[in-house]
Amino acid sequence: MPHAWHLKSRPSGLPTADNFEHKEITLPELADGMVHVRNRWLSVDPYMRGRMNDVKSYVPPFQVGEPLEGGAIGEVVESRSPDFQPGDTVMHMMGWRDEAVLPAQALNKLPTIPGVEPQAFLGNLGLTGGTAYWGLLDAAKAKAGDIVFVSAAAGAVGSAVVQIAKAKGMTVIGSAGGADKVAFVKSLGADECIDYKAGVPLVKALSEVAPKGIDVYFDNVGGEHLDAALALGRKDARFAICGMIDGYNSGAPTSLRYLMRVIAMRMSLKGFIYTDYLPRNGEFYAEMGPWVASGAVKGRDTVVEGLDKTPEAFLGLFTGANTGKMLVKL
Amino acid sequence: MPHAWHLKSRPSGLPTADNFEHKEITLPELADGMVHVRNRWLSVDPYMRGRMNDVKSYVPPFQVGEPLEGGAIGEVVESRSPDFQPGDTVMHMMGWRDEAVLPAQALNKLPTIPGVEPQAFLGNLGLTGGTAYWGLLDAAKAKAGDIVFVSAAAGAVGSAVVQIAKAKGMTVIGSAGGADKVAFVKSLGADECIDYKAGVPLVKALSEVAPKGIDVYFDNVGGEHLDAALALGRKDARFAICGMIDGYNSGAPTSLRYLMRVIAMRMSLKGFIYTDYLPRNGEFYAEMGPWVASGAVKGRDTVVEGLDKTPEAFLGLFTGANTGKMLVKL
Repeated sequence: MPHAWHLKSRPSGLPTADNFEHKEITLPELADGMVHVRNRWLSVDPYMRGRMNDVKSYVPPFQVGEPLEGGAIGEVVESRSPDFQPGDTVMHMMGWRDEAVLPAQALNKLPTIPGVEPQAFLGNLGLTGGTAYWGLLDAAKAKAGDIVFVSAAAGAVGSAVVQIAKAKGMTVIGSAGGADKVAFVKSLGADECIDYKAGVPLVKALSEVAPKGIDVYFDNVGGEHLDAALALGRKDARFAICGMIDGYNSGAPTSLRYLMRVIAMRMSLKGFIYTDYLPRNGEFYAEMGPWVASGAVKGRDTVVEGLDKTPEAFLGLFTGANTGKMLVKL
Repeated sequence: MPHAWHLKSRPSGLPTADNFEHKEITLPELADGMVHVRNRWLSVDPYMRGRMNDVKSYVPPFQVGEPLEGGAIGEVVESRSPDFQPGDTVMHMMGWRDEAVLPAQALNKLPTIPGVEPQAFLGNLGLTGGTAYWGLLDAAKAKAGDIVFVSAAAGAVGSAVVQIAKAKGMTVIGSAGGADKVAFVKSLGADECIDYKAGVPLVKALSEVAPKGIDVYFDNVGGEHLDAALALGRKDARFAICGMIDGYNSGAPTSLRYLMRVIAMRMSLKGFIYTDYLPRNGEFYAEMGPWVASGAVKGRDTVVEGLDKTPEAFLGLFTGANTGKMLVKL
């Protein structure tokens, strides 16, 4: 019998194992246009915590007593849609369970890229890599020869930015907190990496490793990192604004000492959202697929095995149990 | 005999009449490739104060004992260049004098636009109007139907932005300080104008007149105006960053409460400089010329007559003697 993890109660603060319940589910009948999928990989992500609250947002909240949802990759077992055949590898949003019956429109057939494991489509060929790819190459229009600065360079998105930039012939300067993360960023090919926890003011630290200034800044952090990038931006510098984690919790205004340089240096700053680029997934797969296959762009997955371990994998996101992308293998 | 105003001594603080000396000059011989011009209009501008200091900048300082320089429009008297004929109207940088001999490369022949007076090329067909035109239409990519917010809307650049935006079918919201300036901005055709001195927080004031938000912001001010624009920017909003006068004197960092909205709203901010667009002057004249001729885009010139009044005109810039562009007519 198929099983799914259900939301047993809404967490207050950090979730615990008690908020989840493992129960049998009954699959709907395989009506016309429906597809039966056996899941192979489940994604657990920090954003799911938000859906456990009963608040209106751009995605609706999970319901108490109902199965949870999330990104998943599976194999078609049976199909009543002409678009899917048994054996097809598909991506969909009915995670947190081992089997699902979905309408064909809710499934994406994954392209076969030699050397690429299907779970990559939950990481460097999914939201993580897509955010890095489009932010760097479209929002910031980065090109070969550019000097690129990326904050949170040891994070999932940041480390993809470092590797894509190197694959495209750019000079890459990362920022990360602590010696281990700095070493990791350099192991990915970054030309330089500053340690923002080392006590050196960021403008000074960045000017030392980027004496000619920077052409591109990929912002995951905001705040002082953004200000340092403004201080060092040279003529026509382009900033992709992906995230500003510095402000998520504090709620404090961003204080920028070097913002006025955007005029003299003709800089531009651009905010962007990954999902706007989904219609261009074909382009993305064509270029990123071979990089993932060859190892030019590597992820650092943390894999937990078994559906029963799914809540544990999810809770681990908040205790640092993961390095890079957290996945559940069924 | 030709005369020119010379820098007699470097001012400290506000300049005074004692810093200037009116003296005869000897024109160089009219060698091959040189052109002799009789000036008709001189421009005096606040930036000239900076050139009176002995500091390195992107333009070299004026020298004590030497003639001053600045934008001027004149008529060719005699020419030893095949590119200029007596009677041609030309623009050049040898202002503060009644006659000048210059190399042909230092002259720009002005196009003849029916209904346009030559002095317009020192205002709405020069730096002022060009800054407004390119900032609005190129840096911010504003188009018909957009809701445009412009700060310092009663200023020379701001009032050109208001009128160009209306000529292009946009909705325009200005910001100005005090009832008189607000009335002036509305007289230019602005749909709304907020009075930033009225004591209402800017975000609130702007949200009241722009309940749907804004698509474009033309920034002459920075600081709280920029933050209010960030608060009200809607999807794909574009900001042209022209000036940040709020920070010129205070030197304080810019504090932005709403910067993070650039991500969710996919906003972009772009700094720009008028001179980058000089190669596209042809396009600019073709569109702006008829607007200036028809009065669709009006300037508010303050005209002082006579070369002897030039220092007085210049000093008046710092005491509010001018409304709009200050010009000297010879």
